[in-house]
Amino acid sequence: MPVHAEKSLTVLGLGDMGSALIRSWLAAGYAVTVWNRSARSAPNGASVAATAAQAVAANGLVVVCLLDDASVRSTLDDLDLTGRDIVNLTTSTPAEARALSDWIAARGGRFLDGGIMAVPSMIGVAGSGAYIFYSGSAELHEIHGAALAVPAGVTYVGADAGFAALYDMALLSAMWGMFAGAAHAFALIRGEDISPVDFAPLMVGYQQAMAGYAYGTAAQLVSGDYTEGVESNLAMMVTTNGTLLRTAAEQGVSPELLTPFMRLMERRVAEGGGRESNTGVIDLLRRQPALRQ
Amino acid sequence: MPVHAEKSLTVLGLGDMGSALIRSWLAAGYAVTVWNRSARSAPNGASVAATAAQAVAANGLVVVCLLDDASVRSTLDDLDLTGRDIVNLTTSTPAEARALSDWIAARGGRFLDGGIMAVPSMIGVAGSGAYIFYSGSAELHEIHGAALAVPAGVTYVGADAGFAALYDMALLSAMWGMFAGAAHAFALIRGEDISPVDFAPLMVGYQQAMAGYAYGTAAQLVSGDYTEGVESNLAMMVTTNGTLLRTAAEQGVSPELLTPFMRLMERRVAEGGGRESNTGVIDLLRRQPALRQ
Ligand SMILES: NC(=O)c1ccc[n+]([C@@H]2O[C@H](COP(=O)([O-])OP(=O)(O)OC[C@H]3O[C@@H](n4cnc5c(N)ncnc54)[C@H](OP(=O)(O)O)[C@@H]3O)[C@@H](O)[C@H]2O)c1
Ligand SMILES: NC(=O)c1ccc[n+]([C@@H]2O[C@H](COP(=O)([O-])OP(=O)(O)OC[C@H]3O[C@@H](n4cnc5c(N)ncnc54)[C@H](OP(=O)(O)O)[C@@H]3O)[C@@H](O)[C@H]2O)c1
Repeated sequence: MPVHAEKSLTVLGLGDMGSALIRSWLAAGYAVTVWNRSARSAPNGASVAATAAQAVAANGLVVVCLLDDASVRSTLDDLDLTGRDIVNLTTSTPAEARALSDWIAARGGRFLDGGIMAVPSMIGVAGSGAYIFYSGSAELHEIHGAALAVPAGVTYVGADAGFAALYDMALLSAMWGMFAGAAHAFALIRGEDISPVDFAPLMVGYQQAMAGYAYGTAAQLVSGDYTEGVESNLAMMVTTNGTLLRTAAEQGVSPELLTPFMRLMERRVAEGGGRESNTGVIDLLRRQPALRQ
Repeated sequence: MPVHAEKSLTVLGLGDMGSALIRSWLAAGYAVTVWNRSARSAPNGASVAATAAQAVAANGLVVVCLLDDASVRSTLDDLDLTGRDIVNLTTSTPAEARALSDWIAARGGRFLDGGIMAVPSMIGVAGSGAYIFYSGSAELHEIHGAALAVPAGVTYVGADAGFAALYDMALLSAMWGMFAGAAHAFALIRGEDISPVDFAPLMVGYQQAMAGYAYGTAAQLVSGDYTEGVESNLAMMVTTNGTLLRTAAEQGVSPELLTPFMRLMERRVAEGGGRESNTGVIDLLRRQPALRQ
């Protein structure tokens, strides 16, 4: 299929992320056909298609970057996908990605799902650390390897079309938590004569230094021994939670972003986990028993 | 006061952190007198005092690393603190640190408060990135500069005895949020055939790469324009929250650690902040208006 070997592709979606993707392919010499639901200015050099059908007909490789799974479904709904290779970079759930994969296969297309681990300004920037999780058709991942490598690093996580979304959602939730903690921290200092701009590097440095705590957590999840290598015991952390809550009260800040985590730590201590690390919180989040360690 | 110039000090507290501090001073050639409420083995080379009073009498410089402010108060309550320099590395609130400072001054001692930004294994390890926020007496910070630099880097944040605790609590809450996000992420993958040990480096790398998002937040807090440089708009993030919630449901995981953050993002969008970044969440946390930008 020579169309795959040519440096051309279609991108559906001219939002912040779609536009960044398009710019990276244009800069790499690709011919890019684009479409957006509403009128939006397209990056210089892109061919704007009048309809999604025309955009999809223009190239064998069609990258989709819309708001969510529902927008993808409604956009692709009546189109002829025969022989099309759909790479979906729209954020979705694992089950949605699997269902979309089947739905596209039933329409004669092939499917690869992706989860973008970057903000738009990191796309197409060498050394930015941006990468995209891919899962689903290994064939597509191979055939389009060169094109996929243009906007960001490629991390293929298996034939299960849902896995890219699962990794994406897991890392996104890790980031959300980090942002929530940062929001609480900024709120705490905001009543004082401390510039957020002076404070930010301290916080960023500390989050970066402490992120590696997760290695210990992972080791404990595998061994099942949550007291292994503990140097910050949960009973002490729960006492510190009291200090955090009193500090929030002193500074006039609602602790609501952190209280659910504190509550689970307390529950674990009440269940006898005071000498453990905070790994047991993970078990309390799972409504179903883990299938495997 | 020659006692200050000698390489000797007292440490109250033989918990995980107190012991790590003691080991670092012993390794640096300090004579260390230690005391702990209950019988605990002391690091090799430390002199164990029978009572807190004897420990405090042994040296002009007394480092306190107990569980919380209440333990510090009850431990120091009946002791003679005349001429003692108390450096408190116990986690406390800003108001507690200020009150303790006054309380110690009233007993004839001088006071410096500290907040430890490290876990015990980082203490005394060159290049570990460990440091301690100090605030309160600038004189003490100077006189004991050499001793204080032994266990970790020294970051003096001002004469207000409460500031070390404020910075400490702010960074701790940033870390708590990050750990909460990591707990949710581990819970999401735990039902699948994915090893937490393989997953951890991906998550750690992503949290480290994305921590710098806080620089943009700080700039927006200063300018007051929360649409400045936005490349991930809040309306899109709120849609993504829906995807996160559906993913949690699919994976059998409670979303409780992240829902309060999602709720505040939604509130801000409902108030018209859909084109903003997520900085507005910080304002929603503050029960009192910010005193200054
Ligand atoms: N920005 C980031 O930081 C980032 C990072 C990682 C992943 N992502 C993911 O990338 C995807 C796009 O994000 P973005 O930042 O580009 O968002 P955005 O700037 O808000 O753009 C949203 C895009 O989706 C389109 N759209 C919305 N509803 C639609 C519908 N019902 N039918 C057809 N098109 C519809 C919009 O078209 P209109 O112009 O007509 O509204 C627009 O093209 C999302 O899945 C997001 O989660 C974004
Ligand atoms: N570990 C960390 O990762 C870490 C990091 C930063 C800051 N910190 C701070 O360092 C301080 C000590 O933490 P840690 O990890 O060493 O905790 P820990 O291992 O749980 O030790 C707690 C210490 O406090 C003493 N204590 C508790 N209640 C007391 C009371 N009422 N009167 C007198 N002594 C009492 C304990 O004595 P007994 O042996 O008699 O119980 C023990 O020496 C805390 O403020 C903590 O927030 C710890």
